[in-house]
Amino acid sequence: MKKSVELLLVGIGVGSPAQLTLAGVDAINRADIVLAPDKGAEKAMLAEVRRRILATVLKNPETRIIAYPSPLRDAAATDYEAAVERWHDDIAAVWRQRIAAALPDGGRAALLVWGDPSLFDSTLRIAERLASDFDLTVEVIPGVTALQALTAAHRIPLNEIGKPVLLTTGRKLTERGWPVDADTVAVFLDGACAFRTLRGAFAIWWGAYLGMEEQILVHGELEAVSDDIIRKRAEARRRHGWIMDIYLIRRIDRPKGAKEF
Amino acid sequence: MKKSVELLLVGIGVGSPAQLTLAGVDAINRADIVLAPDKGAEKAMLAEVRRRILATVLKNPETRIIAYPSPLRDAAATDYEAAVERWHDDIAAVWRQRIAAALPDGGRAALLVWGDPSLFDSTLRIAERLASDFDLTVEVIPGVTALQALTAAHRIPLNEIGKPVLLTTGRKLTERGWPVDADTVAVFLDGACAFRTLRGAFAIWWGAYLGMEEQILVHGELEAVSDDIIRKRAEARRRHGWIMDIYLIRRIDRPKGAKEF
Ligand SMILES: C[S@@+](CC[C@H](N)C(=O)[O-])C[C@H]1O[C@@H](n2cnc3c(N)ncnc32)[C@H](O)[C@@H]1O
Ligand SMILES: C[S@@+](CC[C@H](N)C(=O)[O-])C[C@H]1O[C@@H](n2cnc3c(N)ncnc32)[C@H](O)[C@@H]1O
Repeated sequence: MKKSVELLLVGIGVGSPAQLTLAGVDAINRADIVLAPDKGAEKAMLAEVRRRILATVLKNPETRIIAYPSPLRDAAATDYEAAVERWHDDIAAVWRQRIAAALPDGGRAALLVWGDPSLFDSTLRIAERLASDFDLTVEVIPGVTALQALTAAHRIPLNEIGKPVLLTTGRKLTERGWPVDADTVAVFLDGACAFRTLRGAFAIWWGAYLGMEEQILVHGELEAVSDDIIRKRAEARRRHGWIMDIYLIRRIDRPKGAKEF
Repeated sequence: MKKSVELLLVGIGVGSPAQLTLAGVDAINRADIVLAPDKGAEKAMLAEVRRRILATVLKNPETRIIAYPSPLRDAAATDYEAAVERWHDDIAAVWRQRIAAALPDGGRAALLVWGDPSLFDSTLRIAERLASDFDLTVEVIPGVTALQALTAAHRIPLNEIGKPVLLTTGRKLTERGWPVDADTVAVFLDGACAFRTLRGAFAIWWGAYLGMEEQILVHGELEAVSDDIIRKRAEARRRHGWIMDIYLIRRIDRPKGAKEF
């Protein structure tokens, strides 16, 4: 018979441990084990956030922290999607091994997920792979996303009143250009400043290291602040060795006679 | 000289008080006053969530809860946008009066905002109106959104790997039809089951009263579950007198030869 394993996928927000929800705190303390990536597998700042979260909120003396080595994605692979699938398989294999070893009779394992587990994150897809090994149940505890940290830091609404917003990636924005379905776009995972490829008048709200001490914010008309963002981003990346940034961008020139939507 | 007033806009999640973040708990306890809409101005269930939040997390004996009557929007007005502007003016006027009375020397006022203050919410726009009366600072504390509560309850990712998602309203989906920029759409504020207007094959993940005891979930191919959702929605609405629901909908037929995007 398969062992019963409950996975708690806890969204932890994107920087400050204070972004954790009460349900997240509770989930961490209900867990028999917390699976945590090894130091070194992650950017030091991110590892530090997780460490601080556990140091602050974990009160249950029975909960064990189980480190696991994070497999790396084959960055040289030509087939990107296949490489991602293999990478997820590898991570699932490590979790499977750690869970089986730490919970021989089954039990409850928590995973601390950056931001919210629903958004540009693969924890749910990896977790599914354990369904063949265990009698698996999954619980998702929502967390604050990078996008909410961005709008909060700039103190702006995400959407114009009653209007749509497109969430996308830097790569898609570059490939497909400005969308037709929304005047406001939130861009995740942009390593290449895709906003440089846009033509027209836009306002941008940019943020890096949101929720952390290193937080940087820039806002203005795209043409006016674009170089500033590119420079600040490059400098910060050099200084810290890595960067995580996100932005909201809004079209401000509506071609004359265009239908309002 | 204008009095210094700090407004703390605290995202409280969409049902369960456990969705509150630690930063939210802290903000509520840092406030001199919490501005809370009068009973009756709001749906009873929503008022109950706020009441429970304050009862559970407010520990600061100095923090006073200040009730205010929620002005109503003129539902008969023909110019919708102008009516919304006037409504926001009215709410700002009530806040202004309550803050001036409760904090004659200035101070810190918290507002409990449903979900996250950035998303289909006007608290930020109303708060701005107080800048002419007070030396105003605004702090936004992010909260879990209805969309995250939906994806968590269904245990699904919001986006396909690296793919865009459109956030929109029922009205816009009906007016504009299925978007070209995304295969996944999240629909807020849909009083009329806009999914009925779609032609093609879709999967839908629907949820009502998320995070509350009354929570209802339906998932399946749109054609197969559409009537079920419409019936459950109407029944629940009749029973409770109101409903809040949201859904994620994904195109599953990609026309042959269509470019992947
Ligand atoms: C793999 S996605 C994960 C998103 C996460 N699940 C969430 O809910 O926000 C990582 C991307 O999120 C954004 N991001 C995450 N944390 C951030 C932070 N602290 N500051 C700025 N951007 C952040 C960046 O765009 C980054 O490329
Ligand atoms: C005015 S918007 C506010 C959204 C909120 N600021 C957020 O962050 O989710 C209200 C809409 O959010 C969705 N919603 C809010 N709470 C919900 C709940 N508990 N269950 C289902 N949908 C909800 C519904 O689509 C509703 O029409």
